[in-house]
Amino acid sequence: MSKVNPFTHLNARGEAHMVDIAEKATTKRVAIARGIVQASAKTVSAIFDNSLKKGDALAVARIAGIMGAKQTSSLIPLCHPIALTHVNIEITQMNDTEILIEANTQTTGKTGVEIEALSAVSISALTLYDMAKSMDKNMVIGSIMLIEKSGGKSGHYSRKP
Amino acid sequence: MSKVNPFTHLNARGEAHMVDIAEKATTKRVAIARGIVQASAKTVSAIFDNSLKKGDALAVARIAGIMGAKQTSSLIPLCHPIALTHVNIEITQMNDTEILIEANTQTTGKTGVEIEALSAVSISALTLYDMAKSMDKNMVIGSIMLIEKSGGKSGHYSRKP
Amino acid sequence: MSKVNPFTHLNARGEAHMVDIAEKATTKRVAIARGIVQASAKTVSAIFDNSLKKGDALAVARIAGIMGAKQTSSLIPLCHPIALTHVNIEITQMNDTEILIEANTQTTGKTGVEIEALSAVSISALTLYDMAKSMDKNMVIGSIMLIEKSGGKSGHYSRKP
Amino acid sequence: MSKVNPFTHLNARGEAHMVDIAEKATTKRVAIARGIVQASAKTVSAIFDNSLKKGDALAVARIAGIMGAKQTSSLIPLCHPIALTHVNIEITQMNDTEILIEANTQTTGKTGVEIEALSAVSISALTLYDMAKSMDKNMVIGSIMLIEKSGGKSGHYSRKP
Amino acid sequence: MSKVNPFTHLNARGEAHMVDIAEKATTKRVAIARGIVQASAKTVSAIFDNSLKKGDALAVARIAGIMGAKQTSSLIPLCHPIALTHVNIEITQMNDTEILIEANTQTTGKTGVEIEALSAVSISALTLYDMAKSMDKNMVIGSIMLIEKSGGKSGHYSRKP
Amino acid sequence: MSKVNPFTHLNARGEAHMVDIAEKATTKRVAIARGIVQASAKTVSAIFDNSLKKGDALAVARIAGIMGAKQTSSLIPLCHPIALTHVNIEITQMNDTEILIEANTQTTGKTGVEIEALSAVSISALTLYDMAKSMDKNMVIGSIMLIEKSGGKSGHYSRKP
Repeated sequence: MSKVNPFTHLNARGEAHMVDIAEKATTKRVAIARGIVQASAKTVSAIFDNSLKKGDALAVARIAGIMGAKQTSSLIPLCHPIALTHVNIEITQMNDTEILIEANTQTTGKTGVEIEALSAVSISALTLYDMAKSMDKNMVIGSIMLIEKSGGKSGHYSRKP
Repeated sequence: MSKVNPFTHLNARGEAHMVDIAEKATTKRVAIARGIVQASAKTVSAIFDNSLKKGDALAVARIAGIMGAKQTSSLIPLCHPIALTHVNIEITQMNDTEILIEANTQTTGKTGVEIEALSAVSISALTLYDMAKSMDKNMVIGSIMLIEKSGGKSGHYSRKP
Repeated sequence: MSKVNPFTHLNARGEAHMVDIAEKATTKRVAIARGIVQASAKTVSAIFDNSLKKGDALAVARIAGIMGAKQTSSLIPLCHPIALTHVNIEITQMNDTEILIEANTQTTGKTGVEIEALSAVSISALTLYDMAKSMDKNMVIGSIMLIEKSGGKSGHYSRKP
Repeated sequence: MSKVNPFTHLNARGEAHMVDIAEKATTKRVAIARGIVQASAKTVSAIFDNSLKKGDALAVARIAGIMGAKQTSSLIPLCHPIALTHVNIEITQMNDTEILIEANTQTTGKTGVEIEALSAVSISALTLYDMAKSMDKNMVIGSIMLIEKSGGKSGHYSRKP
Repeated sequence: MSKVNPFTHLNARGEAHMVDIAEKATTKRVAIARGIVQASAKTVSAIFDNSLKKGDALAVARIAGIMGAKQTSSLIPLCHPIALTHVNIEITQMNDTEILIEANTQTTGKTGVEIEALSAVSISALTLYDMAKSMDKNMVIGSIMLIEKSGGKSGHYSRKP
Repeated sequence: MSKVNPFTHLNARGEAHMVDIAEKATTKRVAIARGIVQASAKTVSAIFDNSLKKGDALAVARIAGIMGAKQTSSLIPLCHPIALTHVNIEITQMNDTEILIEANTQTTGKTGVEIEALSAVSISALTLYDMAKSMDKNMVIGSIMLIEKSGGKSGHYSRKP
């Protein structure tokens, strides 16, 4: 084995790997992310009036987002598995044609949970699309972004408005 | 059991359920979706130059999108399980600060694959975020939308420009 | 390899295997199962009044049951994977201390979906327990049984009252 | 974002969320749950004689229960992910027509493992049904309950006989 | 979108994609694979005498192989999801220090099941390692190969001795 | 319940169970495993030249191995769930007809990660097979073994050459 010695130049070749977090501190970490679903006024009304053919879109999307957050490390190849201690998804009507999704994820661990928060938002948004797609295929999911992050070496992050 | 009779008025109460597709035709169905990741010029360069610390973001994101498409019915609560016959993810640099992700999903089955295409795009985009987040937490994922859809009773759908 | 010939006496040794369904007919198959959750009157009220600390137990349990039905072949070792075409979960208050869960699962395939219906009921019931356990650890899940089954060689099954 | 302020009144609206356990103590936690499968005397004999067509039902059910315990947080929407340190499933013939399933789950973590124990019992029971259903569709799964629980703030719980 | 036109030259760039199988015939497809686990004579005896500390290694490995076969398309990135109609795992003692694992997988579908058979063998072998590793870390898993394959356009394949 | 007393003689009966690791120390644990894929010279060239029909086999196999390592406790029935802190897969051409796969897995936890390393190697190897199988069904996966292990009570393990 000694001649091949494949571990020496790993990163130098740009190959994917799950980075080492063993030495990072175990601290409380919080992330807040959000996204916006744009739809026709009629679709937004049907979502908030619970009159869609498939049923209560808000409840389903909220639960999908929470469950999706827990699947993050199975979905995102180089994401570390982490035991989330809290997940919340909030879905709010912003105006006639826009729905705001916000996710708050927390852990006590060695790495941040921003991907978990962004995944929660994305899967909630995809679920809203799935629930309403028979009446509106033109919906657009956008503005998915990290809003705030705390805990860990890199310190507090807050998106500038 | 006869007095409770819970199945009669199901949809009338707005409760979530996986709709019946048994009578839908088994035909070839195609969906194309896309999304855009906005990042700093430096981050976009690092992604396309394969100089990120975590490794080859484009390859990882493409594979994550394909694998994510296959997980769609586990992630989206009322989505029917479907055996995809083809998945392709394309990631292109649009300009200095924007990356285009397009997904093409296909099946021969009883229901469309637009959620599979949108999920593929979303998970590819989240993966790009994960790969590059140590250098750029301000990235925004947006413009996730269905571009085209064919097969099935509702006929051909093509997004108007 | 010829001397070992391991495939000849397989079932004779009583070893677990996923039985061959290749020759079974592809037909519409339906199963209905039910179960009962017993809890204190106070807990049952809190579930149906949506006043539990963890949130809307009925919506969460219904969605968990639907998603659980789709995971059946991952959970039950010798269960064949099947593409469900319809899943519905109904949760009804029977009386002060009992909650009825009924699941209806359907497919067009080569094997029945009774385990899918029973899994949906079980996972909905476990979810109700999880939602209410901080106020009532004495809840009992019981009477999980198949009520009706149609489609396939064995014909129609209907539980005798 | 400041006007919408969605995080303030979360629980007041009764929406599902994964509760915050960050401040709970990391201690050893144990849960014991049980359930009973009722079947015809002939079916119970076939299970314990290992003469079922699908193979060794007891071994399969025990393993399914252990693996199911590990999937609990994927199945139960608001259940926290937890690293189980021990799982055991015991299946015993109670009498001619009843089979007792007991599960013991343990962790060193921030939240209890009673749902893991109840899930283990439920999935073992569903597996017994699946193994024996070709000879007995009338089986009933019942009496799924928590027997004992230790560790954590709420102290020791022991079901009263 | 028209200027970017990313779908034209896909394969020319060597990027991973799940190939299109829509036009392939739906036929019965069978695959048989095998592998060998080498261990000390003492370990092989303990496995076949069921005297390992962790329990019945043969039953656990057989069930793990069957369940692993069903997870193949989740594990192997470009593998198409397929509904297996039959899986069997056979584990035989070849001699004092070698254990033979054979898997037989079948489907009625549009693509072969050789990866499913090879995955079943691999996961059974890894499970044997896990069951016996406290007494023998030197075990070697090898000779994992396809033995036979039938069904589909490429016709019958049989490994030459 | 007292008469049945099923928990007393558990291991004496040789039944499978997930052993108790609660009292084991939380320390840094590392495992290195490897395996070899044998293929025709033409196939090995196509893999390293990235000229396979399905795309970039090395990138796909590396990512599959990393993701597979994270799924270990879902695949191997009695394997404890563990939060990996680092995973790396290295794939090297040994000679004209042999490809070396090495995996390095790490955690800070209560049990070793050798099964995670062996699973990573196995799933990478299966992925190489899947990528190249249309040109070479005779590939053989072998020599899967633990090379080195550190951390935990049993101390340092290093395979003798």
